[in-house]
Amino acid sequence: MTIRKVNLAELFGRFQDHWKPKIVGEVNDSLVKLVKFTGEFVWHHHDREDELFLVVKGRMRMALRTGDIVVGPGEFIIIPRGVEHKPIAEEETDVLLFEPNSTLNTGNVRNERTVPELERL
Amino acid sequence: MTIRKVNLAELFGRFQDHWKPKIVGEVNDSLVKLVKFTGEFVWHHHDREDELFLVVKGRMRMALRTGDIVVGPGEFIIIPRGVEHKPIAEEETDVLLFEPNSTLNTGNVRNERTVPELERL
Repeated sequence: MTIRKVNLAELFGRFQDHWKPKIVGEVNDSLVKLVKFTGEFVWHHHDREDELFLVVKGRMRMALRTGDIVVGPGEFIIIPRGVEHKPIAEEETDVLLFEPNSTLNTGNVRNERTVPELERL
Repeated sequence: MTIRKVNLAELFGRFQDHWKPKIVGEVNDSLVKLVKFTGEFVWHHHDREDELFLVVKGRMRMALRTGDIVVGPGEFIIIPRGVEHKPIAEEETDVLLFEPNSTLNTGNVRNERTVPELERL
């Protein structure tokens, strides 16, 4: 098995599309994914999966039914399973995700933004 | 359940000790931990757990039997289960760990550096 070092800035530089997470690592049953946010996503939740969002560059607002939380560079937020959320990014925002390998980006929702098969970088 | 935002720099500023991971978040069966490295740790491996090291500040060298890998700020490395490793930090280095909640810091080794009960921040 090859062990590689991942440079986040370098890998974020390799893609331009938004809301399409790329797999960059596996840790046990979880995946590390990189994704670029811009604009508004859709309200959704995950029935069985907690989801961590670490902002690497930019700034996002995590809309929650209980009030929004702004997350900037070097900050993370964990959305527990079952909690409805909607990421919003007024500027382009680079985000690292930690979540189980079963997690679908749109959770309980399936629409044109659903990405069932993720690219690997 | 309260959802909090975690600012990494702020939480790294709350402690000074080395090699003693602090729990700062739970994602499914995994934990997010913060730890400060300085000097050399001990060779060890984890029988059943992969372990992710993301350098937030400073620089570390991950000694591996197959050759060392230097990991700087904004870079991460995943050590798969079973792989012997020894972190070395010539300067103080702030590291975020992502690993199963069963992971012991010294893996298969038990010595004076083993921390069986982790503090939470």
